[in-house]
Amino acid sequence: MINYPNGKKKNWTSNHTSAGGRGMKLESDINTTNQWYLSNDTAVVHKKPTPITIVKVDYPKRSAAKITEAYFKLPSTTDYNGAYRGRYLDFEAKECASKASFPFKSLHPHQISHLEAVLKQQAIAFLIVRFTQFDETYYVPADRVIDYWQNSGTSSYPYAWFKENGYLIPGSYVNPVDYIQIVDQLYFDPQKERNSSNGYK
Amino acid sequence: MINYPNGKKKNWTSNHTSAGGRGMKLESDINTTNQWYLSNDTAVVHKKPTPITIVKVDYPKRSAAKITEAYFKLPSTTDYNGAYRGRYLDFEAKECASKASFPFKSLHPHQISHLEAVLKQQAIAFLIVRFTQFDETYYVPADRVIDYWQNSGTSSYPYAWFKENGYLIPGSYVNPVDYIQIVDQLYFDPQKERNSSNGYK
Ligand SMILES: [Mg+2]
Ligand SMILES: [Mg+2]
Repeated sequence: MINYPNGKKKNWTSNHTSAGGRGMKLESDINTTNQWYLSNDTAVVHKKPTPITIVKVDYPKRSAAKITEAYFKLPSTTDYNGAYRGRYLDFEAKECASKASFPFKSLHPHQISHLEAVLKQQAIAFLIVRFTQFDETYYVPADRVIDYWQNSGTSSYPYAWFKENGYLIPGSYVNPVDYIQIVDQLYFDPQKERNSSNGYK
Repeated sequence: MINYPNGKKKNWTSNHTSAGGRGMKLESDINTTNQWYLSNDTAVVHKKPTPITIVKVDYPKRSAAKITEAYFKLPSTTDYNGAYRGRYLDFEAKECASKASFPFKSLHPHQISHLEAVLKQQAIAFLIVRFTQFDETYYVPADRVIDYWQNSGTSSYPYAWFKENGYLIPGSYVNPVDYIQIVDQLYFDPQKERNSSNGYK
């Protein structure tokens, strides 16, 4: 069973025109959504830059500084955060190519600790996972992600677990991963949302 | 006159043991403070990684991927954001070597737009500026920063403007830039703060 945040089993369908994500498709979809939210004053959410350690920089005359040696660092936080109606919002997003399950190792233990830390600050925190083979994108509240990680005794989240614990995220061409719809229904009064003046339609 | 957020003219002094910041000292002090907040479950605030455009990556056998060509990008947001008591918190931090004023050009127009955008989301947004010659570090609410930027007809914030519009940030060795003290007094009930169970002492 798929849980919908408002209790209704509304038949939300994803209007993706693509045949399902590969590689960075989810990230690019979320960027499109975040840009759409920003343009409409709905929310301000950005992807954090990739953390790197810079070792060597050249400063050629009359041109831009050029980094010639740098390494990727392990992320100590999730990739996305921002502001929505005064609240702090934080999430990690991942694609999953398997039909069976999403492995724990797709998340860094640092990211789990980070989600725990922001939950203590009453953050709106969650995971977005797209099962590319089904073209389904789920929103799962961070507390459930952490609980299963710590207490299930397994090493992956089964696909069925997402159906039980997650919410299918609706999308459209201009707003492919409309996660704010889920946030609204979990954290805000949906009626109030419809009448709000924050530009969200 | 220096404004203190609670209306009192308390004689807050900075306990910096250093003789005043140079270069990255403010950033390192803020990192220390943020680490202290994190350890005490006070707040979760991180500096965003430097945004870069990666052009070329080598994948040597049996060792880590090495970035061999990359360039710095202009930041489209401020450097710091995070969660505090459910609220979204956002700021930019800069040192100022001049005794007279802090030039507009130390901030990117993108950063001003970003502060405007997060204010629409009811963010707790501000600027931290350290006058290194005086070893004074100011908290200035973002709305005042934006208003002066847009309406003053000048190209810098005079030192006296910080005394009028800003709040001197207290600090100690373990917590050099204790900006949460100002946030508490501007946004939360100070009495409640003292009795809160969020680990803040
Ligand atoms: Mg990531
Ligand atoms: Mg900066």
